Amino acid sequence: MSDGLLRVGILGVGRMGADHAERIATRINGARLVAVSDPATERAGELAATFAGVRAVDDGLELIADDEVDAVVVASPGFAHEEQVLACLEAAKPVLCEKPLTLDSASSLRLVEMEAKGARPLVQVGFMRRFDPEYAELKRLLDSGSLGRTLMVHNTHRNKDTLPGFVSDMIVRDSLVHEVDVTRWLFGEEIAQIHVMAPTPTSVADEGVLDPQIAIFTMAGGGIVTNEVFVNTGIGYEVRCEAVAERGNATIGLGSGPLLRQDNSAGTRIPEDFRDRFATAYDLEIQAWVDATRRGEVVGPTTWDGYAAAVVCTAGVESLTTGRPVNVELAPRPTFAV
Amino acid sequence: MSDGLLRVGILGVGRMGADHAERIATRINGARLVAVSDPATERAGELAATFAGVRAVDDGLELIADDEVDAVVVASPGFAHEEQVLACLEAAKPVLCEKPLTLDSASSLRLVEMEAKGARPLVQVGFMRRFDPEYAELKRLLDSGSLGRTLMVHNTHRNKDTLPGFVSDMIVRDSLVHEVDVTRWLFGEEIAQIHVMAPTPTSVADEGVLDPQIAIFTMAGGGIVTNEVFVNTGIGYEVRCEAVAERGNATIGLGSGPLLRQDNSAGTRIPEDFRDRFATAYDLEIQAWVDATRRGEVVGPTTWDGYAAAVVCTAGVESLTTGRPVNVELAPRPTFAV
Amino acid sequence: MSDGLLRVGILGVGRMGADHAERIATRINGARLVAVSDPATERAGELAATFAGVRAVDDGLELIADDEVDAVVVASPGFAHEEQVLACLEAAKPVLCEKPLTLDSASSLRLVEMEAKGARPLVQVGFMRRFDPEYAELKRLLDSGSLGRTLMVHNTHRNKDTLPGFVSDMIVRDSLVHEVDVTRWLFGEEIAQIHVMAPTPTSVADEGVLDPQIAIFTMAGGGIVTNEVFVNTGIGYEVRCEAVAERGNATIGLGSGPLLRQDNSAGTRIPEDFRDRFATAYDLEIQAWVDATRRGEVVGPTTWDGYAAAVVCTAGVESLTTGRPVNVELAPRPTFAV
Amino acid sequence: MSDGLLRVGILGVGRMGADHAERIATRINGARLVAVSDPATERAGELAATFAGVRAVDDGLELIADDEVDAVVVASPGFAHEEQVLACLEAAKPVLCEKPLTLDSASSLRLVEMEAKGARPLVQVGFMRRFDPEYAELKRLLDSGSLGRTLMVHNTHRNKDTLPGFVSDMIVRDSLVHEVDVTRWLFGEEIAQIHVMAPTPTSVADEGVLDPQIAIFTMAGGGIVTNEVFVNTGIGYEVRCEAVAERGNATIGLGSGPLLRQDNSAGTRIPEDFRDRFATAYDLEIQAWVDATRRGEVVGPTTWDGYAAAVVCTAGVESLTTGRPVNVELAPRPTFAV
Repeated sequence: MSDGLLRVGILGVGRMGADHAERIATRINGARLVAVSDPATERAGELAATFAGVRAVDDGLELIADDEVDAVVVASPGFAHEEQVLACLEAAKPVLCEKPLTLDSASSLRLVEMEAKGARPLVQVGFMRRFDPEYAELKRLLDSGSLGRTLMVHNTHRNKDTLPGFVSDMIVRDSLVHEVDVTRWLFGEEIAQIHVMAPTPTSVADEGVLDPQIAIFTMAGGGIVTNEVFVNTGIGYEVRCEAVAERGNATIGLGSGPLLRQDNSAGTRIPEDFRDRFATAYDLEIQAWVDATRRGEVVGPTTWDGYAAAVVCTAGVESLTTGRPVNVELAPRPTFAV
Repeated sequence: MSDGLLRVGILGVGRMGADHAERIATRINGARLVAVSDPATERAGELAATFAGVRAVDDGLELIADDEVDAVVVASPGFAHEEQVLACLEAAKPVLCEKPLTLDSASSLRLVEMEAKGARPLVQVGFMRRFDPEYAELKRLLDSGSLGRTLMVHNTHRNKDTLPGFVSDMIVRDSLVHEVDVTRWLFGEEIAQIHVMAPTPTSVADEGVLDPQIAIFTMAGGGIVTNEVFVNTGIGYEVRCEAVAERGNATIGLGSGPLLRQDNSAGTRIPEDFRDRFATAYDLEIQAWVDATRRGEVVGPTTWDGYAAAVVCTAGVESLTTGRPVNVELAPRPTFAV
Repeated sequence: MSDGLLRVGILGVGRMGADHAERIATRINGARLVAVSDPATERAGELAATFAGVRAVDDGLELIADDEVDAVVVASPGFAHEEQVLACLEAAKPVLCEKPLTLDSASSLRLVEMEAKGARPLVQVGFMRRFDPEYAELKRLLDSGSLGRTLMVHNTHRNKDTLPGFVSDMIVRDSLVHEVDVTRWLFGEEIAQIHVMAPTPTSVADEGVLDPQIAIFTMAGGGIVTNEVFVNTGIGYEVRCEAVAERGNATIGLGSGPLLRQDNSAGTRIPEDFRDRFATAYDLEIQAWVDATRRGEVVGPTTWDGYAAAVVCTAGVESLTTGRPVNVELAPRPTFAV
Repeated sequence: MSDGLLRVGILGVGRMGADHAERIATRINGARLVAVSDPATERAGELAATFAGVRAVDDGLELIADDEVDAVVVASPGFAHEEQVLACLEAAKPVLCEKPLTLDSASSLRLVEMEAKGARPLVQVGFMRRFDPEYAELKRLLDSGSLGRTLMVHNTHRNKDTLPGFVSDMIVRDSLVHEVDVTRWLFGEEIAQIHVMAPTPTSVADEGVLDPQIAIFTMAGGGIVTNEVFVNTGIGYEVRCEAVAERGNATIGLGSGPLLRQDNSAGTRIPEDFRDRFATAYDLEIQAWVDATRRGEVVGPTTWDGYAAAVVCTAGVESLTTGRPVNVELAPRPTFAV
């Protein structure tokens, strides 16, 4: 790692790959995007050209082997995952592989076994919901034990619409797979049985597509999980998760932070202080300042804003003291000479 | 800028300074923390030692002058701001100055005028609410014109409690100052008059402290703004802002994203798709992967999680096809040899 | 009172009078509507004809004097109130007088003094918000003392639009008057000072109408109350009230029951049991059954619904026992012979 | 029906019977409670004595046959329903029978067939949820067709705790039976299949009680319904119902009125006007006035309240005109001579 930054290469420049490239180049601390690769070499070249110091590499396996690549993001189509992750394992390079790990259980198991022969884990799979602040808070709540044992989970997963070529299996493999992962993670248990049912389909779905679907999981410990997946609602993207435990229940995905029901009250949390409430605002403020400063600009509140605030607050203190309204008088606003 | 990163020095290592140091060192892209300075030299030394490659500099003005510092964050107490920002202007270095810009209007105006003599703006003042996603969305909504002209704003600003030594003026100067800034920003107008009233104080406040306070702003264009500031509620940190326009009103700070009232409905927005809903989760996922990889670890979902998901989804597709529950059979889980 | 029912006469058959007539005739227990009166005698006749056993009386004072009228509802225009209430006091008849009591303070005071000369109170004024379940719950909460002393109240009162002929004063006299009453009631104190301000009016209001308005009340005990009244929002009818006390705050009118903020949580109450949650449903059920039975009909769930529920539940118990889905088999549905 | 009121007799003076007695005697319009009957004759006597003009009758069948009883409420234990409803049918008397209609399908079917031999329907079964304003609004919304065909319903039914003697079957027969009825009613279809599953029970339930339970209904038209019933949550009474249709979904039981999700927005309705918002307040106001008047009292806002409002509003109009705060001066408050 030259200059201490992790040098990252990305395989696949489709929607997810391009997203991750932009993320690493502009928002992530401690990493540097150095290379991208895709069989669509032209698109890879265009994406590389968007960022300073990023190369396009024609052959994905070459990117993995490159000495200047410390770690790899696999965002290629699922069928390419097995070969690419395997190459990363052989090169002993850490890899973040978008879901699914591979297209079938046998190949996934081969990767598990291959990785286990190495000195340490190298692969992270892209189930990003575990990093969502709401899911993470729900996990902490359940693990804290304050609600007792988790008995049931109810998941809702709805998309506005689907792309052409959508088929029934994709509801299980591409959508429900997220509920599979978060459920295993929340319970800390494997799923022992699955039952997928299809109500009479919506007339909005393509002919022959079984949409919506309802899936029931029975957990190894006896918990039961209901899942609704409905991918042609026309409404928007709704992802909710309600965990029902022995002494309370909590729902996330309402757009309001976790809603906890306990003791005759349905409550959401009020932040403790300004750092709690405005943590993201501070991050965005400093990132905006760094970005603007590197461009030679100022984008946020100016000295004039600081001055005007001082005048108003001075008037405010006078008003508080006298009990009367106070007019606010500002000096003429200077303009930059240039 | 060696290696293309903005080299940042921080003046002041109190709560805000330490926060900003941690932020720049671990979450901000494109910057490198290189130096901190504080009259409390021991504390500055301890903070510097927390991060690799960060020096503690005894004299703040020396930090500003340092050739290896490209830009400065001023997080020192308010009385030090004028001298430090002035030094930044003289050194032509970009500076982010925590609010207040200075302690009184005259000195703030001096900084405005000094900056205006330069070639370009150099100062950003730390009114971070403008970067809060909810305030930013409210600003966009009002600026879009879809609700017509803004008529009134109602601000609520409540803290759980105060530190020892708190006096009445601080409600205006340290708390209400945020409402002063966001109101000027939302209206795009100056405040023409301010009236601050004090109800009979809460018995929870220290003797002699006028808490809560109600402030009325009259905007230059005739709009009226009500503000409640109450800093000893014992509840938590509540910051809400309701903007009332000619054809609708919108409230932020409810913990639910902006609540828009229009056409006989009070509504919150449903995200368009997964990138919209899980943008932060993706950022946190990649940041966690980068951080863990630099430490030589894996912290997220593993190949085993990828494998288990594949097995469950395969069983799910079988269940969808047959209409029957399907048991999930996993291989024994391999363990790392080491 | 023949047959034990209170015999009620109504003065005024405009919107409120007609509403009250329908209410007493069809939903109120223990009363019987016997007479209505209005200078618009034709309309009074039509309204009387809607209900069995109700007479139209041409002269309002005659209705008050009628031996078959035990009590009077005054729903006539405000200018008629003084004479009519006075007549009720002279006849010693209980009267519910719609707000305002009279059009000016002097005449209202005359009624206060006249009533006080009698043996017992006879007049109730139609400030109906005190009977709204949410306002009543807020009053109980504040009176319980659990939140400490009430410091501030923030009222919001918005109408969708206004009728032709609307003038600025009506915002104070017809709309704000409700906030005047609930504020006095919630604090249990008189209002010591009022300040009404007008922001630049909305362009939606008629030329010359000062809409919206902001009123500040100072209570006798030092509390401060902010009120927004805005009668041309185009949105709907929004009435909210936030009471801020020393150890918590509570808001009503959100459409969700009182929202209580205390101890880092914003919470709404979960009902204790089914009688709590479905009390209104039971009242409506029995009222619907009584009404239908008097008409010789049945309108609710039938024996068939009772039978179908029995069959499904029997199948459900079998399923619970066997662990398998159970088909539901219903007998052919009989039809009435007639 | 002497005096035009429906004369009602009640069988059973347990919790529901006593509730209904109080309801009919004090809140329902157009009916008169005349008799109650229970094998626990002492308790029946006590209940009868609570209300004027109500007799206790020892034999329930005698009450049904009584010429002075026009209609009957059956609130006795389930095992007594068949005989009592049958007696009502034979006497051609309208009857409201609390759920369940009878304890098993065969006896329920006998009542269906017996009733069908009569001239007109006589029986209403006590599924009161159909009369709940929220359920009724959901039914209207689905029937309006604006959301397209209903595809799925998700019901949640949770109780705080259970009485001693509770057994697993009661979750199906006493709790889930409500979901059975509302589901049939909302879809306008019969249930074709039921599958009841039991997760590992909560440790809070009595030994051997399968609590919670999850039931899946398949509707005759192919819709699927998930139901959670959990009767020992320790939280309170939660009843929610989410209907998912082709072009939107709606949830009731959130404590906020129906939440409709459509077009990227989750919205609740804002009332049109004051009669819409305060309809219940007006009913309660008039009922309170009637009740107090019959007792010779006044309980609501007084002439003093009307006078004080007039003084404050006059001062408010002066303030609006002058732009200045105006003090409120009240006359001394008269006291009743007596």
